[in-house]
Amino acid sequence: MKLRAVGSFLVGLLVVGLVLSSTPADAAPKYRWKLAMTWPTNFPIFGDAVIKMADMVKSMSNGEMEIRIDSKNKHKAPFGILDMVKSGRQYQMGHSASYYWKGKDLNTMPFTTMPFGMTAPEQYAWFYYGGGMELMKKTYDKHGVYSFLGGNTGNQMGGWFRKEINDLDDLKGLKMRIPGFAGEVLSKLGVVVTNIPAGELYTALDRGTLDALEWVGPSLDIKMGFHKIAPYYYTGWHEPATELQFLVNKDKFNSLPKHLQKILTTAMQYAAYDMYTRSYHDSAIHWAAIKKEYPHIKVRTFPKSVIKRMKAENQKLLVEKSATNSEFKAIIDSQSAYMKKVREWTRISDFSYLQDNLE
Amino acid sequence: MKLRAVGSFLVGLLVVGLVLSSTPADAAPKYRWKLAMTWPTNFPIFGDAVIKMADMVKSMSNGEMEIRIDSKNKHKAPFGILDMVKSGRQYQMGHSASYYWKGKDLNTMPFTTMPFGMTAPEQYAWFYYGGGMELMKKTYDKHGVYSFLGGNTGNQMGGWFRKEINDLDDLKGLKMRIPGFAGEVLSKLGVVVTNIPAGELYTALDRGTLDALEWVGPSLDIKMGFHKIAPYYYTGWHEPATELQFLVNKDKFNSLPKHLQKILTTAMQYAAYDMYTRSYHDSAIHWAAIKKEYPHIKVRTFPKSVIKRMKAENQKLLVEKSATNSEFKAIIDSQSAYMKKVREWTRISDFSYLQDNLE
Repeated sequence: MKLRAVGSFLVGLLVVGLVLSSTPADAAPKYRWKLAMTWPTNFPIFGDAVIKMADMVKSMSNGEMEIRIDSKNKHKAPFGILDMVKSGRQYQMGHSASYYWKGKDLNTMPFTTMPFGMTAPEQYAWFYYGGGMELMKKTYDKHGVYSFLGGNTGNQMGGWFRKEINDLDDLKGLKMRIPGFAGEVLSKLGVVVTNIPAGELYTALDRGTLDALEWVGPSLDIKMGFHKIAPYYYTGWHEPATELQFLVNKDKFNSLPKHLQKILTTAMQYAAYDMYTRSYHDSAIHWAAIKKEYPHIKVRTFPKSVIKRMKAENQKLLVEKSATNSEFKAIIDSQSAYMKKVREWTRISDFSYLQDNLE
Repeated sequence: MKLRAVGSFLVGLLVVGLVLSSTPADAAPKYRWKLAMTWPTNFPIFGDAVIKMADMVKSMSNGEMEIRIDSKNKHKAPFGILDMVKSGRQYQMGHSASYYWKGKDLNTMPFTTMPFGMTAPEQYAWFYYGGGMELMKKTYDKHGVYSFLGGNTGNQMGGWFRKEINDLDDLKGLKMRIPGFAGEVLSKLGVVVTNIPAGELYTALDRGTLDALEWVGPSLDIKMGFHKIAPYYYTGWHEPATELQFLVNKDKFNSLPKHLQKILTTAMQYAAYDMYTRSYHDSAIHWAAIKKEYPHIKVRTFPKSVIKRMKAENQKLLVEKSATNSEFKAIIDSQSAYMKKVREWTRISDFSYLQDNLE
């Protein structure tokens, strides 16, 4: 969904930072860190992953290290996380998403997810065993921070549409909320890409100011209520494996004792995998609930003609952006070469298996 | 593959337990544990996950806890792991697979993978958020041990066949190595299920003592060389998400300080996820290598008529085994109810996405 506006729909919640349960007096933490996250207080799944990470650090270090979490309601700078962690003055670490920094450094964009890119298991393989982490480190070294994986939403849905899309003509003039790179692609197909704050999306869709919008998937869409007014739910193409990120100030990290570095790293990496599993579960449960209560909802896949044009425009944009940026090109090339191999494995394993059991 | 025989094909390797790099003299570990694993010395992926877990425990605990790993070459009882960990005399923990204990307690079987069951992301969601861990705890409580997830191989392939399978008749009298529950299913379809030690499989397949065999998938099959003599590689149905297990003696675990319990638990859980990612990567890379060197290999999916009969016989066996065992029935029912929901999410997310990008 490109969560630039997630805050505004949770207005009214306590505007305080989350303070973890305090350490017993006989074991005051030697290391007190603060984490700034892009998300508002009590934001489900994303925020829960951060809390889980901090709890793990505290209990594994036997109280030697404690991390206080500030939500965007507290620090007021959801898209200032990279800068704040880089400076290290107030926050030693953060939780956000790499593609938010593309205005500052385009090369950060591919480390979240890419249209028509890898699925979550494929992308984890690329990050940890296919060279992805090394490329991400190189990009973030310039910014004085380490970037770790921060949790996956799973495959995001293509969005809620009031009318069915049967061919390319149906997209011309369609008013849709879809931010970022995917918005750039759709605008080439004639979609009027509109940016509307999250808190006003439901009304805009209801009144026809919007014809369509994308958010995340059933895990988080259910609370937004779009299914009550837009009956066509399209399958995804633009964010097949949205991976959030933990950011850590390099100097602060390097000054930790080795065992706390390992504890912190493991806690972040585990919390990231766990968020993927949690998202998978919540998507399944919420999707079942939506279908039960609103049986009229129809799942649709974009017609082949539309997918074909999306792919072509996506490719064109990548070539354009690569032409003058060799580092960006190196990242995209690495992903694309890896995907060619790993997708063949996906084809003969889970995909074939699901064909036998779904078709 | 049901790894009952993995040992024998690595004969010749050093018959010693793996001792981790020793702790510095100034920080002798307070807790020295020993782990017995089903696998031989230097067994790739499975053994690497255990080493990674032990390394994490040592570094996160700052040397307070150290785990020595004994391979089957050392302890000589690859299928005695559950008993050894239960007694706790020599080994506080182990690494194996839950379905190996089905002779002792049928209820342990479903905690590895089931024919026509969940894929890895689906199954992780069931274990951690859908009640699976609670059911597994209940089953293992009776054995005095805790069972944790121990790493996933990903979807296993259906096996290497010398001849193509075009209908049910082609299975009648076919001599195949396929152990366990899947073997029971195939024998109902007329397959002559044959058990041959791992070290003799290649020769048996080459000489026609076997017409077919299943092992794991490209990640581990490549070293066995079956692709050189059996050109048909069938997609999987019987082990869609083989999850290994860490076993820990309950009393020993409970007597650890809380922070070491948390360190050990986190290290096991992270190592498990990491093994899934490693398996995905190795499968992709090895499959690409096999295809390049042996372009004549043909991937096949069993015909619909065969799949249909497999499913029916599988279902019949489950009903039989459930009839006199309410705990087994409760586990199978939980998996089946969860799969119904989670598969619908898989259908509209990764499966639809892959259809757009593969077909």
